[in-house]
Amino acid sequence: MANPTAAMLVIGDEILSGRTRDSNMHFLAGELTRHGIRLMEARVVADDPAAIIAAVNALRTAHDNLFTSGGIGPTHDDITADAIAAAFGVGISHRADAMALLQAHYDRAGLEFNDARKRMARIPDGATLIDNPVSTAPGFTLGNVHVMAGVPKIFEAMVASVMPQLTGGAPLLSQSLRVERGEGEIAAEFGALAAAFPDLSMGSYPFIQNGAHGTNLVIRGTDAGRIDAAMTQLAALFK
Amino acid sequence: MANPTAAMLVIGDEILSGRTRDSNMHFLAGELTRHGIRLMEARVVADDPAAIIAAVNALRTAHDNLFTSGGIGPTHDDITADAIAAAFGVGISHRADAMALLQAHYDRAGLEFNDARKRMARIPDGATLIDNPVSTAPGFTLGNVHVMAGVPKIFEAMVASVMPQLTGGAPLLSQSLRVERGEGEIAAEFGALAAAFPDLSMGSYPFIQNGAHGTNLVIRGTDAGRIDAAMTQLAALFK
Repeated sequence: MANPTAAMLVIGDEILSGRTRDSNMHFLAGELTRHGIRLMEARVVADDPAAIIAAVNALRTAHDNLFTSGGIGPTHDDITADAIAAAFGVGISHRADAMALLQAHYDRAGLEFNDARKRMARIPDGATLIDNPVSTAPGFTLGNVHVMAGVPKIFEAMVASVMPQLTGGAPLLSQSLRVERGEGEIAAEFGALAAAFPDLSMGSYPFIQNGAHGTNLVIRGTDAGRIDAAMTQLAALFK
Repeated sequence: MANPTAAMLVIGDEILSGRTRDSNMHFLAGELTRHGIRLMEARVVADDPAAIIAAVNALRTAHDNLFTSGGIGPTHDDITADAIAAAFGVGISHRADAMALLQAHYDRAGLEFNDARKRMARIPDGATLIDNPVSTAPGFTLGNVHVMAGVPKIFEAMVASVMPQLTGGAPLLSQSLRVERGEGEIAAEFGALAAAFPDLSMGSYPFIQNGAHGTNLVIRGTDAGRIDAAMTQLAALFK
């Protein structure tokens, strides 16, 4: 049975300007792989409604799941919730359950639940909330789109909330072999091995260490026995 | 005058599987910002010809420049050059100047210039080569698409080769202010300031440090005087 698929959309000017280096994509990629969900594509777009709406609609229709990060805070540049509502053609309003969660949070902290903070309770119609154990302001799931915060600690907690509810697949397994030879030297035999195991995916990743060329050879698939068989042949070729 | 625009396409299963954390996008974002070129969008796709071709054609028509990383080595999973040729509808062959560069390189190293290594001289018709001072195998520019290696050290050297040939714009400047208050507390005044300076872009980036909420406020634009004026008001608001 084919593994479910996913895409990710990172939203934020700060990534594209080079101010911030995104870490959420790499984190999500690892989590999805463990859950047997294949990450097929990722995109980064600016804080621009048209760009967000176009990307959301392209990715949510092409894949089983779409995960977004960024743009759900209280400031003027936080426009993701509105863009998601527009992408789905649904309304958006301050929702009672989200308002109650936030009111209690700010009461406990002795802080005013002001209009900016109330913005974080604006949720598109028909969505379910995603728990935020770090700072309370919820993410949400609408259809197959999971909308999460950009702050890595909060993003990671939200992924942990969402993951158990998703339909996973057979875990995506991998084994790798490090060889102290350049790619050009191992390419022919490695390519022949890949052709002999069409059910597996094989990749080669060159590195340079202390001026010497080496290559990490990676075999990926869902059948542990087949991966073992291929690894045995690979090790025999290049040991 | 509006700044030129760019997109980036990262090609590679290893990024989407979570094996490797991409660093090239962040590096390129910083370089483009310094050269006054606005990075509008980035995508990551797998080693899949259809996915690469679709992304290349979408991004090269939407932006002034497209930069790709990954998939130009000697192994079976290196399919970027063929995908670029297909995207442009042009032929691809072992090119004499690239063959000569590589032949000399492997002669110097005392290594066989085998068929796998010759693959790295396959260049789409009409392209110009991008110098690779690290390991010789060239990248190439075809139309407004700059095709570069995935290994960060080589990618960065190729960016340095390409950048002086691009049409830049006014440098994209930014200043930032760190405040020890949560976003919800500064959102109203910061939003009002952003509305008063519609020619500038203002973003707020929350952080949590030692359990306390703080925010980095960033002002971006191309007019240093306007940025200074906005920063003066910002500092007065939140000092």
